[in-house]
Amino acid sequence: MTEPVGTEEGRAITAFSARLHIPIQLRWGDLDAFNHVNNTSMLKLLEEARVRAFWRPDEGEEALSTAILDSGIDAGVITLVARQEIEYVAPVPYQRRPLEVQMWFGKLGGSSIEVCYEVYNDPSFEERVLYARSTAIIVLVNPATGRPTRITPEMRAVWAPYTGAPIVFAHG
Amino acid sequence: MTEPVGTEEGRAITAFSARLHIPIQLRWGDLDAFNHVNNTSMLKLLEEARVRAFWRPDEGEEALSTAILDSGIDAGVITLVARQEIEYVAPVPYQRRPLEVQMWFGKLGGSSIEVCYEVYNDPSFEERVLYARSTAIIVLVNPATGRPTRITPEMRAVWAPYTGAPIVFAHG
Amino acid sequence: MTEPVGTEEGRAITAFSARLHIPIQLRWGDLDAFNHVNNTSMLKLLEEARVRAFWRPDEGEEALSTAILDSGIDAGVITLVARQEIEYVAPVPYQRRPLEVQMWFGKLGGSSIEVCYEVYNDPSFEERVLYARSTAIIVLVNPATGRPTRITPEMRAVWAPYTGAPIVFAHG
Amino acid sequence: MTEPVGTEEGRAITAFSARLHIPIQLRWGDLDAFNHVNNTSMLKLLEEARVRAFWRPDEGEEALSTAILDSGIDAGVITLVARQEIEYVAPVPYQRRPLEVQMWFGKLGGSSIEVCYEVYNDPSFEERVLYARSTAIIVLVNPATGRPTRITPEMRAVWAPYTGAPIVFAHG
Repeated sequence: MTEPVGTEEGRAITAFSARLHIPIQLRWGDLDAFNHVNNTSMLKLLEEARVRAFWRPDEGEEALSTAILDSGIDAGVITLVARQEIEYVAPVPYQRRPLEVQMWFGKLGGSSIEVCYEVYNDPSFEERVLYARSTAIIVLVNPATGRPTRITPEMRAVWAPYTGAPIVFAHG
Repeated sequence: MTEPVGTEEGRAITAFSARLHIPIQLRWGDLDAFNHVNNTSMLKLLEEARVRAFWRPDEGEEALSTAILDSGIDAGVITLVARQEIEYVAPVPYQRRPLEVQMWFGKLGGSSIEVCYEVYNDPSFEERVLYARSTAIIVLVNPATGRPTRITPEMRAVWAPYTGAPIVFAHG
Repeated sequence: MTEPVGTEEGRAITAFSARLHIPIQLRWGDLDAFNHVNNTSMLKLLEEARVRAFWRPDEGEEALSTAILDSGIDAGVITLVARQEIEYVAPVPYQRRPLEVQMWFGKLGGSSIEVCYEVYNDPSFEERVLYARSTAIIVLVNPATGRPTRITPEMRAVWAPYTGAPIVFAHG
Repeated sequence: MTEPVGTEEGRAITAFSARLHIPIQLRWGDLDAFNHVNNTSMLKLLEEARVRAFWRPDEGEEALSTAILDSGIDAGVITLVARQEIEYVAPVPYQRRPLEVQMWFGKLGGSSIEVCYEVYNDPSFEERVLYARSTAIIVLVNPATGRPTRITPEMRAVWAPYTGAPIVFAHG
C-alpha cells in the first residue's frame, strides 16, 4: 500500500492503491529553450516508464512482475495510446537523480487499459515535488489486422493488484 | 468561417468557428519502432503549430496576423502548457506533404488560453483524414517571477475572431 | 561537376556543383536550453533531407528524381549510417523559413554511398549563412540477413550526376 | 588504468588511458522505424554522458570529480560542439540496462577539448559489445560575447588524468 505523499486534495483519492515506482533518468536534452523539461519530453518519460513496467524483458534482463506484455510488431501485439491527458503541476529543472514515475491502473478493460501516472523527484530528496499527473488510455492492437486484441487472463491477474482510483482532472 | 471538413459527429460541434490552418512538415524521425508517428511526436507538431500561429516572428519573417506574442526568456513572457489532452483518432504514417494543424481558441481567459487542435493530412489529398484532436491550456508566465501575466488587450482583439466551441472529449 | 569544397572561398561558390536543394522546416523544439538548434537536432534535419532526397515516395506523392530507394523493413532494404562527421560552423537560431540542405554524393560505392551536406538558411534571406557541413557514409543493408546489399544500376545512373568532390575536414 | 575491453585492433591504442564510465539509460523512444536505436539518438546519449561527466552538479547532487564545469547561460559559459565524428559499429537494440559510455580526453586545448567516446552495453552482460566510437570537439564559449573562453587551471588539473590517445578513424 502506498501512503499519501502529501496533503493535497486531488492526490488523496489515489493514495491508497498499490503503485509501481519506476525511476527514469532525465536528459539535459529534454530541456527546451525555456530551460525546463519540455512538456512533450515529459510524455517521453511516461512512455519509457510504461515500457519498463509492462513489457516483457528480453531473456536475462530483470523487470517487475507486471512486465508480461509481449509487445512488438513481431510479437503480434502493439500498444497504441488512444487518449492521454496530462497536467503539469510544476516546471521540472534538469537533475541527475532519476525522476520517479508512480503508476497504477485506473481501469482494466476488455482490450484497453487506463494507466495513471504521477511524476515526482527522487525519493532521496528531502522535499518531494509532484511535477505532473497523467492518464493514458492504451489499446492492445494486432498489427496485422489493426484490430484490438483482448487482455489475457494472465495479464489481468498480474495487473489487478495495481488497480486504483483514476485521477480526476478538473475540466472547464 | 470554416466549413465542416467532414460529417463525423464529434467534429460537427467545432465546425463553425474560424480556424487557423498551419502546415507542419513531418519527419521520418517522428516515427517509432511501430512505424507510425509516435504519440509524443504528435505533441511536438502541435507545439510547432502553436509557435507559428501565436509567436511574433523575427523582423523580416512572415507570419499570420495572430502571431503577436513576444515569447522568450528575454521578452519577459514565456508560455507554459498547464494541461493538455489528446485523442489519437488514426495512426499517422510518414508522408512528405505537411500535416495540416487546424487551431482555434476554446477560451480566452485572464492569463491563460485554451487552444484547440485538429490534425489532418494535407488539403491536397483526395481523402481527408482526421488524425488527432487536442486541447491545451496555455498560461502566460513572467519568467523572472514565475507568476502568470495577463493577456493584453491587443492579443485579445487579434485572437477573439478565432474563438470557437471547445472540443468535447468523452471521459470515463 | 563539383568544385573543391575545401577552402573558405570554395564553399561560398556552390553554384558550380550539381546539388540537391532540400528545404527542411525547423521546429522550436529543436532548440536546447542554450536557445540554439541543438547539435543532435541538426543531424535529425540531415536525416530528413536524406529521406526526402533518396527514398521513393508513396504513390501520389511528389519527389525529386533521385528518390528511388525502396527503403523499409518490408521493402527488403534499410539504410544504415555507418559513419558521420559534422562541423558546426555557426549557431542556428529558430527561424520560420525552412533551412536549405544542399546535398551531393562524395562517392558511390558498391553497397555504400558517401553523402555530403551543407546546411544554409533559406535562399530568400539577403545574407546566406552556412550553418554546418557534414558527410555520412550510408550502407544499404538487407534487414533479413543484416548483410550489405548492392546499389542497383538504376540508382547509380540516377545519382551519378550529383557526384562531386567530397568535403575535406581539418583533422587534428 | 583501463584494461583493453577487446582485442580489436582499432581499440587497442586507446586502451591504456584512464577513462570515465557513465551509465546512460536507453529509452524505447530512441528507436526508429527500423527498430534500432536511431543514429541521432546515439548522439543524444553522448551529450547526456558529457553533461554528467563534466558539468558541475547542483548542490546536494552527486557527481564525478571531473564534473566541475559551470555550464549555463547564467553561469557565463556554454559548451558548443564545434565538430563531431561518429562511427556506428553495431546496431543497438532496446535494452533495459543502461549503456556504458566510456569517455576520455583526446586533447585539452586552450579553450577547446577533444572528447573521445566508446559506447558499450552494460558491464553485467557476459558478452560486451562495442556499439559506437565518437570524437567531439567542444568549445567553451561566453554566451554574452559569443567568444571562446579559456579552460581554467582547475579544469586542466582535474581533467588531465583522463587524457589519452585520440580515436583514429579511417577516412576515405
